Parts: sequence; C-alpha cells; structure tokens
Amino acid sequence: MPYRAPVTDHSFILNHVVGLDKVSATPLYADATPDMVEAILTEAGRLCEDVLAPLNRQGDLHPAVLENGVVRTSPGFGEGYTAIAEGGWVGMSADPENGGMGLPMAVTTSVNEMLAGACLSLQLNPLMTQGQIEALEHHASDALKETYLPKLISGAWSGTMNLTEPQAGSDVGALRSKAEPNGDGSYAISGQKIYISWGDNDFTENVCHLVLARLPDGVEGTKGISLFMVPKLIPNEDGTLGEHNSLRVVSLEHKMGLHGSPTAVMQYDGAKGWLVGAPHAGMAAMFTMMNNARLGVGTQGIGAAEGAYQHAVGYALDRKQGKTMVEGGTGTIVDHADVRRMLGVMRADIFASRAIALACAVAIDMGRATGDQSWQARAAFLTPIAKAFGTDVGMDVAQQGVQVHGGMGFIEETGAAQYSRDVRVTAIYEGTNGIQAMDLVARKLMDGGEAAFALLDEMEEQAEAAKGTMPELANAVWQACETLREATEWMVAQKDYNNRFAGAVPYLRAFARVLGGHFHLTAALAEGGTRQKLAQLYISRLLPEHMGLIQQAKQGADDLFALSTDDLVA
Amino acid sequence: MPYRAPVTDHSFILNHVVGLDKVSATPLYADATPDMVEAILTEAGRLCEDVLAPLNRQGDLHPAVLENGVVRTSPGFGEGYTAIAEGGWVGMSADPENGGMGLPMAVTTSVNEMLAGACLSLQLNPLMTQGQIEALEHHASDALKETYLPKLISGAWSGTMNLTEPQAGSDVGALRSKAEPNGDGSYAISGQKIYISWGDNDFTENVCHLVLARLPDGVEGTKGISLFMVPKLIPNEDGTLGEHNSLRVVSLEHKMGLHGSPTAVMQYDGAKGWLVGAPHAGMAAMFTMMNNARLGVGTQGIGAAEGAYQHAVGYALDRKQGKTMVEGGTGTIVDHADVRRMLGVMRADIFASRAIALACAVAIDMGRATGDQSWQARAAFLTPIAKAFGTDVGMDVAQQGVQVHGGMGFIEETGAAQYSRDVRVTAIYEGTNGIQAMDLVARKLMDGGEAAFALLDEMEEQAEAAKGTMPELANAVWQACETLREATEWMVAQKDYNNRFAGAVPYLRAFARVLGGHFHLTAALAEGGTRQKLAQLYISRLLPEHMGLIQQAKQGADDLFALSTDDLVA
Repeated sequence: MPYRAPVTDHSFILNHVVGLDKVSATPLYADATPDMVEAILTEAGRLCEDVLAPLNRQGDLHPAVLENGVVRTSPGFGEGYTAIAEGGWVGMSADPENGGMGLPMAVTTSVNEMLAGACLSLQLNPLMTQGQIEALEHHASDALKETYLPKLISGAWSGTMNLTEPQAGSDVGALRSKAEPNGDGSYAISGQKIYISWGDNDFTENVCHLVLARLPDGVEGTKGISLFMVPKLIPNEDGTLGEHNSLRVVSLEHKMGLHGSPTAVMQYDGAKGWLVGAPHAGMAAMFTMMNNARLGVGTQGIGAAEGAYQHAVGYALDRKQGKTMVEGGTGTIVDHADVRRMLGVMRADIFASRAIALACAVAIDMGRATGDQSWQARAAFLTPIAKAFGTDVGMDVAQQGVQVHGGMGFIEETGAAQYSRDVRVTAIYEGTNGIQAMDLVARKLMDGGEAAFALLDEMEEQAEAAKGTMPELANAVWQACETLREATEWMVAQKDYNNRFAGAVPYLRAFARVLGGHFHLTAALAEGGTRQKLAQLYISRLLPEHMGLIQQAKQGADDLFALSTDDLVA
Repeated sequence: MPYRAPVTDHSFILNHVVGLDKVSATPLYADATPDMVEAILTEAGRLCEDVLAPLNRQGDLHPAVLENGVVRTSPGFGEGYTAIAEGGWVGMSADPENGGMGLPMAVTTSVNEMLAGACLSLQLNPLMTQGQIEALEHHASDALKETYLPKLISGAWSGTMNLTEPQAGSDVGALRSKAEPNGDGSYAISGQKIYISWGDNDFTENVCHLVLARLPDGVEGTKGISLFMVPKLIPNEDGTLGEHNSLRVVSLEHKMGLHGSPTAVMQYDGAKGWLVGAPHAGMAAMFTMMNNARLGVGTQGIGAAEGAYQHAVGYALDRKQGKTMVEGGTGTIVDHADVRRMLGVMRADIFASRAIALACAVAIDMGRATGDQSWQARAAFLTPIAKAFGTDVGMDVAQQGVQVHGGMGFIEETGAAQYSRDVRVTAIYEGTNGIQAMDLVARKLMDGGEAAFALLDEMEEQAEAAKGTMPELANAVWQACETLREATEWMVAQKDYNNRFAGAVPYLRAFARVLGGHFHLTAALAEGGTRQKLAQLYISRLLPEHMGLIQQAKQGADDLFALSTDDLVA
C-alpha cells in the first residue's frame, strides 16, 4: 500500500486539539490561517506521496557509499532532495528576510512528520539543515548569516551537527576537538567527530558543518566549548565556492537501518572555521539546534509509525486467513479481534504522540511570538516528552506492524521490517530517550514543577468540564492526572537526583500516557464519531499503563544500587 | 564480551525454583540428579562458549545461500553442527533405545536455551530435529522409527516441519498440498511450502521433511490433513541413502535477521512420502511436534535475551561516559541510575521468563513420567505463556540492549543490533504470539479455568506462607494473584470468544508477569542475597504492569469492532 500523507489528521489536531488558532492570532504568525495551513499540508503531502515514498526502499537496498573520499547517495535521493528544496520545505520556518517561509513550527512539524513517514533516511538531511538555520539565526554574526542562511534556506547547501567524539557522546563536555585562531578572524579546527548524519552527499553544492571544539583558553567540560561553522567548500567573498576545506569523511557506518542516510566519521585537520556565537558559549548555541532537532526527531518516530501503520492496515485488509467471527466482516484478518486490537492501539498511539508533538510546537511558536515565559517553559517541558514518546511510539508501532504481517513481517521485501530497523536510531540520537527523561526530571522540574503543574491544571480543568458530556472518559483522565500530580510532587521533593533518575524513564512515559488521554478526550469532545471511538480505545486500553509506570517512577534508586556490579554479572 | 553460559542460574532454577527434584523422583527420570544435571549443563555450556558463540556473527555476515539448487551454509556452521551432534545434544531427550539420552525436557530446555544464546540461527536446526524426533516417537510406524530415529537422534540427518503455504499460515487447514497413494505403501506428495526453517543444508547426510498434505479423500479444513515423512534422499532397505526425492529448494528468503538459518520455499513434485500416524490425523501428530517446538521457541527468546544482556552489561562496565553519581562507583555508565535500571530490569525479566519455561518443561516431564492429567494440563497451559512471554522478553531485552549501547547499538559491528534482528522472528514463527494468546484464552481455558486456578492456588498459598518472612514481596504477589484470578474468572465467563480474543494478548502477559513474581519470590525465599534483591526489583518495578494489562484484558471486543474499517483507514 503506497504511503498516503495524513493531512486530515494533522489539520484536525492543529485546529481542534492543540490550538493553532492561538498561534495565528499573533502578529508574527497571522498568515497561518486554517485554509493556508491546509493548502500547505496538502502540497507537502503530494510531494511525500508522489516523489519521496517511492524512494524509501531504494535507500534501504542501496545504502549511501563512500567512494574515493566522496559520498554517493542512494538512487533517486538527489532528485528527491531537489524536490524538497524547491518546494521550500527546508526553510519553511526560517526568516522570510533570508528566503524562508516564516511558518510556525507547528506547521513545520506536521510537514516534517509527513516527509519522515514517506522517506525517513532522506528527510533526516533537511531536518539537520533546519536545526542549523535556527542556530545561525539566533547566534551567528551578520556576516555569517549573510553568507550561509540564504543558501541553507534554499536548500542549495545542507547542514550537519558535529558533537560526538568516540569518548564524548551523552557527555559532550568530554570532547577533545581543538580550535586555534588563525589570526584573520578564522580558526583552525582539528579533531575527529563520529555519528555525523549526512556528513556528506552528492546533491547539495556545499555541506556546512557546525562543529563543537575547544579554544586554547577553553576550560574543561561544557563551559569551555565553542561552536564553529566549518564548510566543506570555503565560500569566496563574491559568494562563489572556493577551495576544499581540510576536512574529510573517513568512513561511513554500517547501520541496522536508515541505510539511505550516510552516517560519517569526520576528520578535521586544521580546517578553516568561523565562530558562531561567543567564545566558550558553544553549548548554548548548540542547544538551540538540539531542541529544535529533538522535537524533529520525535516527529520522525511518529512519521515512521504512520508509515508502518498504513503498511500494516493495508496488509490486514488484504490478507485472508482463518475464519472470521464477525458478521458482515471483510473476510480478511482485520476481522480477528487481536489484529484489530493491534491496529486500533497503533492508531490511538500515533494520535497521542502526534498531538503531543504538535502541542510542543505550538508552545514553541507561542513562546517566540509572545515572549511569554510560561509558553517557553511549556515548550521546554514538552520537548523531551515529544522526543522520547514519539520515538518510542515509532518503535512500538513498527514492531506491531511487523507482527500484523505475521511471517511476511520478517521478510525484507514487504517493507514492514525496514520501518522497525530505520526508526530504531531515533530513540538514540539527539540524546537517548534515557537522556531525555533525565532532562525532564532534572532540568525541566527545576522550576519546582511549575510547568508540569500548569499542564496538569489545564488537563484536569478540561476533564472536570467534560464529566457531564463524556463521564467515563473524563473521569478516567481526571483520575490519571491526579495520580500523575502525586508522582510529580514526589519527583520534585527528591533532593537526591539519583532517585529522580531511577524513575525518569517511566515518569516521562506516564506523563506522555496521560497527555495522550487528555488530547484524545479533547478530540472526542470536538468531533465525536471516529475520534470518540479512538479516545475510548486509548483511555480504556492504553491509559491504564500509567498506573504501573508511576509505581515504578516512585521507587527511588536504592533497589538499583543495592544490586552490585557483581550481582549484575553473576 | 564473549558469551558465558548461565549454568549457575539454570541449576539454581531447576533445583530450587521449579522443582526438578519431583522429576528425578520418578522412575523415568531417576538419573537426573542435581550432580548429573550440573555436569550436563557445564558440558553443554563449554560447547556454547568455545564453539558456537564465535559463529554467531559469521551467520549474520555470511547468510546461507542457494547455489545451483544447493544450500551453502555460513562459515563454520558445519563444524558447529557436528560438535552439537557429537555431544549428543540433538537427541538428548530422545528414547535411549534409539540412541537418545532420555533426559527430562527440563534439562533439554536449559541446554537449548544456552545453545540459542550462543548462536540462535544454528540452534534452530537441532531444535527442528528435536520436534521431529518427538513426533515420530509418538506417531510413526515401527518401520519408520527404525529407519529415521537413530539417524535423527545422532544428528546424522536433520528434520524440518512443513506446514505453511502462501494461503495457509495461522490457518493451517487451508493448505492445498496433495498426497496420492503410490500403491506400494508410499505416497506422492505435491505442493509448495514456505517458511521452511533449515529446509536444506550442506552438513547433514540427509534432510527429513515432515509435510502436511491432504489425501484424495481428505475433507476440507484441518480434519482432512495427514502427515508425511518426505526425505531429501530416499533411504534404501539396507540403510544406505538412495535416489534424490522429487523435491527442491526453490528459493531462500531475505530476512531481517537470523541470516545463518536458511528459510526455504520448498517445492514437492510427486515426492515420495510415508504416512506418519493415521490418515487425516496429521494435525494431532503435528501438534506433538509443535508443542515441543513452542516451548523451544520461547526458550530461543530467552537465550537471545541472555546473549543481549551479557553484551550490554559488558559494554556498560567498560564504557566511561558522564560523571557518575555514586561513591566508590566503577566510573563507567553502569553507575548511571537509568543504565542500572535497564540492566536490572533485563536481568529480572530473563529470570522470570526462564523460570516459566523451565516450570513448563517440568510439567511436561511430570505429565509424561506420571501420566497425571493435572500435570499435563499444566504443561498445556504454560506452553503458550512460555512461548509468547519468552520471545517478548527476548525482543524487549534485545531492544534494551541496543539502548544501553547508545549510538554504538545501531552500528552492526557491536553485535547488539543482531540480537534484536535475530530474535524478532521468534514472536512470529511456531504460531504468532497472538495465536499463542488465543490458544490460552480459548483452548487452555476450556476446562473452565481448572489449570489456571490450580496454578493460582499454589501461587497464593506460597505468598500467604511467605507473608511472615518477606511481607512486602509476598503481599504484592498475593494481591496480584487475586487480581489475576478475577480476570481469569471474567475470561472463563465470556461465551462470545471475541471478548476473550480481544484481551488475549494482555491477559497472557499479565499471567506471565504474575508467574514471574511468584518465581522471583520463590528464589528470594530459597537463597536471599542477590536473588532477593532481584525479586525486590521485579516485584516493585515490573509486576505492577499487570494492573494496566488486566484492565485491558477485560475490555471485551465491542470497542474494537466499533471501529469500522473506514475508521481504521480514514
């Protein structure tokens, strides 16, 4: 079954669940009316269906390869990328002054999800560039902006993020790459970086690397790190491209999935770079890029889930097997209660994770458009949830998609397996989901839980108001909020952060579960019908998971550290 | 980190958790004393560590291939197989009269798990042969037994199961393969079979296919199916091998994992076969083989989990990253609370699934040794749980293993990804885990829940008795049993089987969760120390999952079928 872009679902969630109207009521995003948004999503959807989806399997079968130091990309990827760039989708949220569309992140998030659902490995390329654009918009000098932003926004050049080194992954502060001043305002960057997504390609004119490195006077740890723009080809003053920088792709990784995306080991040998932001303030600039990318990666998970779901439902509606037990059924396996359970649960989870991601994007937009700190705090709070839950749903749904296919699911030709292999990395890169959860219970609860409680207040208020019209659903959501509130109070009260970390992953998932209930309830109230049936399914089957999760979240660390390393290896 | 066979854990579970002493108290298995079992496991463990584990990655890198109609297996697999056969491990539970070791299934299950943990793709070969041996022992004529059993038991020949056809997967009764009497006591078998694990190889002298086909007077559906022995090379009367049968490997599947195991499409064109069991009674004979194989496949999941866990704990003890927050810690990521949580949960789940599989094996042995129907009913009840939960744990632990590795987990060279790809099929073959769950709530509760309630009685009795010594753990287990009892009563009361099927998967998992709590408590009571710490972790962190599962199990099918197919594709 070919991929169909879920335009209707996105429009509905934007307009009726997460409140895009608030965004379009601000001067900054006044153009983002429902009609305009629908038109944009429809246009992007067509690209996804017609151009990108057919490339997905090509990327898996014919991985990007490194030949004589040059990356050759998968068949059709160059044309696919050009279509993305020409549609303006790389710079859709970028500043119109530099050629961007200036659209809210909410719309960009919807489009990104559809691009990812069609061809995850290729979509990762513009996603990286989007993060780079945002980092430059916020932190680069005017000269750098002028040179790079128009090219990145048009998609003529692409961008990468260079954080990780072999000894410095989650602990970025351990990096060893060096930057020496050249005396002419530029710097000589040296070091090796690993896991560089789309470290090179053969379809953009240039590849722009944002590289974290340490200046000679940079202290140890994250406070001594600076950020540099290090282009593959050094732009001349007249805008043309000049000499090749002293950087190269050493090798590409052999990965479990996402074969169409070249993951490079990059070597910098005194490569020319330019400082982005203040010296030693690289982490702040990088976080701008990373926060954007975290929501983007969560969205990748949801896109993969949508692709896997469509694949599975197509198979289930086609495959005849066993006696069906439903009168007037289709005669295919969709009539088996267990298959229908899997499909229903997959769909309900996709809705929940999609609504969370779009709510996060709306909070980002509102924070930017209004400068209101409570919106900014909400965006910060929702980002790790959107990233981890979106990618967990991606993995779960892709695995269920394989299961719906039965034996065919394990055979590569059906494509079900590819979704599960491709999406796997989304739970790891841009900060593992464990790191997201630690961010949530530590940094994002540093306000004493203010952002969390504000969300809970809103959810409870809505549930309270819905008790008259949809008592069963509303009561379940309200009760879940109460349980989550207690868990949040427990978290905030922990002075020993290991107690928080020991329950971080289940706490994050519980929060997502309850948010999902809230958004499903919102959808049911707005439209009834299918939305209400799906809400019923989510709230009775998936929401109850929060009980066990919260119990685990509140265990503290003692039982974990009671297990010695000897206990673990015995 | 090289694979180390978990001999100590198996010995402990066999002797102190699942009651192997009851088995060795029967005349049939009197030789299976603790010392003997320990010696056997140690011997098998050495084979796994020294010979098989080094082959695991070879199988992934160099899949079996079909060349000119002949299957060429992965490098070293021939030598590995010979070592398994020469150790007597193929026929370890087979009748000593035919050269078997006559060991209880409990011991075979332990050995199978270790073989699977070392090299899953190769271990699948003798596992298939074991199932065939059992089917022949129970159903074949003396002549067939005499010809085939000694060769299969010694491992000189291997065996396969041929059930599936393109239109007949979970619904075996839809098969179209035909068997025509040749008039000389043999039959001409024609048809195509798919997903034939180890359909051919280049290291056994012969490959013996057990094939389901329909005789001319066979009715439609499962009641018209007969079972045939169809050897690749037809044995002469003197025991030597004669002409090649009219069967061939058409192709091998391209699979997500388990590359070392050739999965064949088999074509039979009037191939010579011999009836096994009575005409039209093929399903009964096949079920003998399948029940054995179902426990075996559950055990594969646990083996893969053990391999993935060891890999992950090895990495976590070696990898330095981030500031550790534990005094006197190792300085590696194992000191991060979230990493330790993952490892602890993985280990606790491996224990739970292992104890369930071995308890199932003990029930099989007791049923056989005593003829006691309540043991047989217990074995039948535990088999789908052991299969589905063992393989689900295999998938979960392998995915967590990837996560512990961070970015390295997605890179194939580390081997973490291979575990997750290889184990994926175990949740599908030998009846998908959905089919296992449907078997549990339909056929295995047809006794009105007698087998289930007998188990629950035992678990509650033990928890009750332990309330004095380990009140926290015992109370939690006791309460979980009560909740599960109510859910079981609800299931048994459902006359509309779709209501059962709609909750089958969560019900099975809830039952496994509670059984796991019971066995962890048993272990804690038996030995304290590490066992008690692990029981504490399981009961506080994993057991609570049963609450949400049981809520889902009792939903009935209405909400699922309220979703129309239009709702699903909208």
